[in-house]
Amino acid sequence: MLAWRGQGPSMGCRFEVRSMLSDDVVKAFMPGARVLRAPTASGVLDGLTFAVKDLFDVEGAPTTYGNPDWARTHPVAAATAPPIMDLLEAGAELLGKTKTVELAYGLTGENVWYETPINPAAPDRFPGGSSCGSAAAVGAGLVDFALGSDTGGSVRIPASYCGVFGIRPSWGAVSLAGACGLGPSFDTCGWFARSADVLEKVGQALLPAESGQGLGPVLKAEEAWINAMPAVAAAMVPAMAALERIAGAAMRVEVAPEGLPVLYEHFRCMQAQEAWATLGSWVAATSPRFGPGVSERFAAARGMEPAKAAAGRAFRRQFRLRMATLLAGGGVMAYPTSPAPAPRLTAGQEEQNAVREATMGVTAIAGLGALCEVSLPVARVEGAPVGLSLVAAPGRDRALLRLASRLAQELGLP
Amino acid sequence: MLAWRGQGPSMGCRFEVRSMLSDDVVKAFMPGARVLRAPTASGVLDGLTFAVKDLFDVEGAPTTYGNPDWARTHPVAAATAPPIMDLLEAGAELLGKTKTVELAYGLTGENVWYETPINPAAPDRFPGGSSCGSAAAVGAGLVDFALGSDTGGSVRIPASYCGVFGIRPSWGAVSLAGACGLGPSFDTCGWFARSADVLEKVGQALLPAESGQGLGPVLKAEEAWINAMPAVAAAMVPAMAALERIAGAAMRVEVAPEGLPVLYEHFRCMQAQEAWATLGSWVAATSPRFGPGVSERFAAARGMEPAKAAAGRAFRRQFRLRMATLLAGGGVMAYPTSPAPAPRLTAGQEEQNAVREATMGVTAIAGLGALCEVSLPVARVEGAPVGLSLVAAPGRDRALLRLASRLAQELGLP
Repeated sequence: MLAWRGQGPSMGCRFEVRSMLSDDVVKAFMPGARVLRAPTASGVLDGLTFAVKDLFDVEGAPTTYGNPDWARTHPVAAATAPPIMDLLEAGAELLGKTKTVELAYGLTGENVWYETPINPAAPDRFPGGSSCGSAAAVGAGLVDFALGSDTGGSVRIPASYCGVFGIRPSWGAVSLAGACGLGPSFDTCGWFARSADVLEKVGQALLPAESGQGLGPVLKAEEAWINAMPAVAAAMVPAMAALERIAGAAMRVEVAPEGLPVLYEHFRCMQAQEAWATLGSWVAATSPRFGPGVSERFAAARGMEPAKAAAGRAFRRQFRLRMATLLAGGGVMAYPTSPAPAPRLTAGQEEQNAVREATMGVTAIAGLGALCEVSLPVARVEGAPVGLSLVAAPGRDRALLRLASRLAQELGLP
Repeated sequence: MLAWRGQGPSMGCRFEVRSMLSDDVVKAFMPGARVLRAPTASGVLDGLTFAVKDLFDVEGAPTTYGNPDWARTHPVAAATAPPIMDLLEAGAELLGKTKTVELAYGLTGENVWYETPINPAAPDRFPGGSSCGSAAAVGAGLVDFALGSDTGGSVRIPASYCGVFGIRPSWGAVSLAGACGLGPSFDTCGWFARSADVLEKVGQALLPAESGQGLGPVLKAEEAWINAMPAVAAAMVPAMAALERIAGAAMRVEVAPEGLPVLYEHFRCMQAQEAWATLGSWVAATSPRFGPGVSERFAAARGMEPAKAAAGRAFRRQFRLRMATLLAGGGVMAYPTSPAPAPRLTAGQEEQNAVREATMGVTAIAGLGALCEVSLPVARVEGAPVGLSLVAAPGRDRALLRLASRLAQELGLP
């Protein structure tokens, strides 16, 4: 019952399958009364419903940021975040706020205070986070699309794990006013949808205009393919073939000769310093209760050596230029969004740490490069979804969404 | 005594004139004990001193954001903002925190709670804001450089008014983690210096690497020249001639056929909505006391019509593309930073409003376009400084600083 959409006969079908799941099962929404807002005008999103991760403000509602002590020490929101205003103006209807990992600082999607949402595509596995509730709500068909935020993978990873489309836009492309921050120089406002078409329409409401041709050629970022489980790489063969039919023969490129672990380490140190700069004053003044893993991450953030973070920034300054140069002509990188499907709910802390390290080396590519990345639900491995990512230069978000739509069409995805 | 550096014989001289002013006169620093931090390493800023606007966190010190109720309701900072860490790592020494307009929401530089800093170059006039203390501290020679923030002109305007160099970097080029926000999609971390050389060195410590050629040709943005006082335009003739010697003959370009007031209006509506989204929850929960002008601006922010802000964002999406296209080949716009020197301290609210409108139509060009802008202290009118701005495409900050250095050299500025 829970695996409501799979890679089977229905994959070739263009009809949308609506889930029979209710939120009583999925637990994607924040408990309590729903935060409902009617559209304020008519536009490209007419007739669509959406939800927002509970780190975006909606006027008159609390913003919990996934933690009861945050909720307790912050006033009810007096304003609605501008991206939400844009969505309401474009005709969409808000159906509620979705769960987030505490302070968005985690990748599994676990939340011990409000209950971890169920992964509708693989209920025995984590939904991925930190935008776990948004991915689960979209995956279960409770809404047509949902806003999340992505600092180190928090949209891309749950999109991959829950078998939905997701985008991390170019850094800065969508305003984060009215949203809680974690690592401002990495934070982005992303979103999920069950179809590439809806993913693209939301982009029309939120993204800047852009110039430039269509994207191509396809660049296979070597390190990310080598890093993936062999079964994941194998499962992506049909999607890569389809991508080559659309955008030309793929070329292999080396994007991180220093190794993905180096990318992850630089990312981790910068993010930790920014997390402490952003949230440390509140943590130090409040001494909040945190769930497992989160308190450890904040302790590490507090103790981050300045020289390590500075080395990270020095690396990032060069890495951005490297990526901008590589992708300037319209090249689009392709690689598995996550090296594996979601870890099982029974995975221990050690396994979770190993998964995080292997995963964030890949997500750090777009994070450090300020690139835009779309994850498409193209495959299943061990019965669970894994996404294929397309990654383009900063500011090419609309072109990337168009390419994702064409690829989805070519693959018979929604 | 106060007009310590003027456009006279000393302008051609390459020696740095150190002011005899103390902060007892200038009142640039926040009152109370100075926030001092030694360099943490050695680098490009060795031997230089700096200050930071009091909306950047420094571990162990309060961040007042220019308002006593903000200070009262926020914990002492547990972390230091990453850009400050970078400056300390590069060898600079922090000498204190400087005054800001309350919540950075104002252009004159007035602060009724902590006293308005003196404009060292024109003591009968406003210093300009919101980064008033940083501009005054640099102008008076109390520090070599100072960090400010610029949302709608808060570095560029006080630079122009106080006769110092200032940069608003490309939006997003420098992290604002650990800094209070006002309008996140416009907020930038900028800085002031008394010499183009120091301005550029700070950029070497803070800015991303970039590719691309030198900048040129020079584009005279028509509307900004027409908008300036005739005496200001006339006073810029020698600087423009020098710029043409360096970067080629200037071409006249129309950048805002819809008129600068339309740019200002779109900017104002978006900024107001973002200000309420960012600070409204705190304002509503705290009911803080505000000085004159600030409470009116927050009341307007609270009441901003969503459709107006949405129209602003729709305009900005197109305007960014227009500017990116215009400047893609390396073009550099030039125009007076402010249409006039600083208003006199005796100016009433009505005159202040008129000045703000005329000024922010010009500052909105870089604000809406996410462009980088450097203001150089090239002229004096009515005995007070006015800056010439050079404006380039997003991401061309380092090239822009190099061009500013060459122009300063050509003009015999420090």
